[in-house]
Amino acid sequence: MDSDGKEIFRAILAAKDRLLGKANITPVMSSRTLNLLVGGEVFLKCENFQRIGAFKFRGAFNAISRLSEEEKSRGVITYSSGNHAQAVALVGRLLGVSTTVVMPDDAPQIKRTATEAYGADVVDYNPREKTREEVAGKLREDHGYTMIPPYDHPDVIAGQGTAALEMMDEVKALDMLLVPCGGGGLLSGSAIAAKGVKPNCRVIGVEPELADDATRSFRTGALHTVKNPPTIADGTRTPSLGKITFPLVLKYADDMQTVSESEIIEAVKFIFYRMKLVVEPSGALGVAALLSGKVAAKGRVGVIISGGNIDGPTMVKILKS
Amino acid sequence: MDSDGKEIFRAILAAKDRLLGKANITPVMSSRTLNLLVGGEVFLKCENFQRIGAFKFRGAFNAISRLSEEEKSRGVITYSSGNHAQAVALVGRLLGVSTTVVMPDDAPQIKRTATEAYGADVVDYNPREKTREEVAGKLREDHGYTMIPPYDHPDVIAGQGTAALEMMDEVKALDMLLVPCGGGGLLSGSAIAAKGVKPNCRVIGVEPELADDATRSFRTGALHTVKNPPTIADGTRTPSLGKITFPLVLKYADDMQTVSESEIIEAVKFIFYRMKLVVEPSGALGVAALLSGKVAAKGRVGVIISGGNIDGPTMVKILKS
Repeated sequence: MDSDGKEIFRAILAAKDRLLGKANITPVMSSRTLNLLVGGEVFLKCENFQRIGAFKFRGAFNAISRLSEEEKSRGVITYSSGNHAQAVALVGRLLGVSTTVVMPDDAPQIKRTATEAYGADVVDYNPREKTREEVAGKLREDHGYTMIPPYDHPDVIAGQGTAALEMMDEVKALDMLLVPCGGGGLLSGSAIAAKGVKPNCRVIGVEPELADDATRSFRTGALHTVKNPPTIADGTRTPSLGKITFPLVLKYADDMQTVSESEIIEAVKFIFYRMKLVVEPSGALGVAALLSGKVAAKGRVGVIISGGNIDGPTMVKILKS
Repeated sequence: MDSDGKEIFRAILAAKDRLLGKANITPVMSSRTLNLLVGGEVFLKCENFQRIGAFKFRGAFNAISRLSEEEKSRGVITYSSGNHAQAVALVGRLLGVSTTVVMPDDAPQIKRTATEAYGADVVDYNPREKTREEVAGKLREDHGYTMIPPYDHPDVIAGQGTAALEMMDEVKALDMLLVPCGGGGLLSGSAIAAKGVKPNCRVIGVEPELADDATRSFRTGALHTVKNPPTIADGTRTPSLGKITFPLVLKYADDMQTVSESEIIEAVKFIFYRMKLVVEPSGALGVAALLSGKVAAKGRVGVIISGGNIDGPTMVKILKS
């Protein structure tokens, strides 16, 4: 790994210390049936058992805990209607930092309620009139909040990398690591963590065919964007990789792979029925790539299960399909 | 504990050795939210992660592996349309013992298919004309099969007790243990295992209100029966405790508690949404007793999650309710 990678790897090691006793050290699960089906030894790093039900707690905690006392006293802001919103809200409560979350006024009530339950101040905006960046930027200027973006931030990336780092310690000597890709924070952090421990571990990002911006960006070297992709994997609906994550994914990921909606659904069902785990569709991307045969399992294969926050109607739809 | 209990405790210790490397050592999970809600420290022993998705593997393996070579060569038989059937079928395959499972001809196709997939020979009978004991007894006489009943057998009880034994080792010093109760094999084995390690651990059996035969038997000292109770917790639809399990439950359980159907459903949903675990309704009985306040959590509370084999339509019904 080059010196940039080594520096980020050191930041991931530091984040691990910061998260000690705060984040859950999530278990690694396996399945004889899955191993037989894919012809490799597969290990699932279960971030669905992380606090708030997804890996996002790691990055949010790492970023907010690194702020100065003065920044903490002014509070933080973010824009997200998903797991990052809940992560920032919970971390704010744990660290005594006030949190503001900008959410579109058509966000599901359940996500708004969950974020408020963790103690955040939710500010609505009309996505037909303004962008979330505009709304958050204005509030930030008016109140002096610090922005904690969902992925394009060095401390967020370092925090997300701790899941793969933990896994390398729990499972040892992985030959391959599959990581869901939305904005690329988890993927770039995971790739650097894995290669920092085992340089020849092959790291593959997985995204839905319907939201294949990162795959196209990776293949062409030019940033591609997919706006509001209609994929069931809501954690990957980010329009594109970020200014920081795009070059990191280009440099440290070995490949990208896309999977279809039905492959994602089959993976959620397999994990539900055979492994008794609740995972959200984005969390099942790695297993979908293996079960569909699109990624051939070789040796010891790690898979990051990114989260388990699936709402009732989505699970019902999947179980009935 | 008296000498009977001590002898069974020794049988549980021996079963633990026999199961080493065969059964999964299942993880113990906890939830900050659950602890806050119930005011105790709760530990879930996750037998939904056991082989075949339920604790039944333990008893079946212990019983079948203790047979003589001659008995093994003649094969085994059981009657069950649930988890015990799959457990016997898988153990038979692992130990090279042929298995026959007697099932009512109206048993769900999915259960029949699962049992056959593990390699058992499934024999149908018409439950309007004959009892399963009659059908199994005839086959046993004709073929010299050994009967492996679902709960009323010393080796089955000893095997089931290994889950609680493992838990006492994993969690240490439990003040209370909640155990689902159907035929009483898991409850009696668990009670003896827990008290063998920590004599003052309070053990409480939990069953559905609609299938409260064991609770009434426990209170009155006389065996009560509930035929085909319409509870969603299908693992507890056994008509009554057994000849062996009834006196053991009377002697070693400290109390019994019933929970309503809606309390069971709420518990399955809580475990799904907050803990990201798939549990079958019978497996959620202990959590239902705690969340409903019917059992007050005191100190360190263990809960046996007996299994995770829930079919799609049942989970859909629960998520929509």
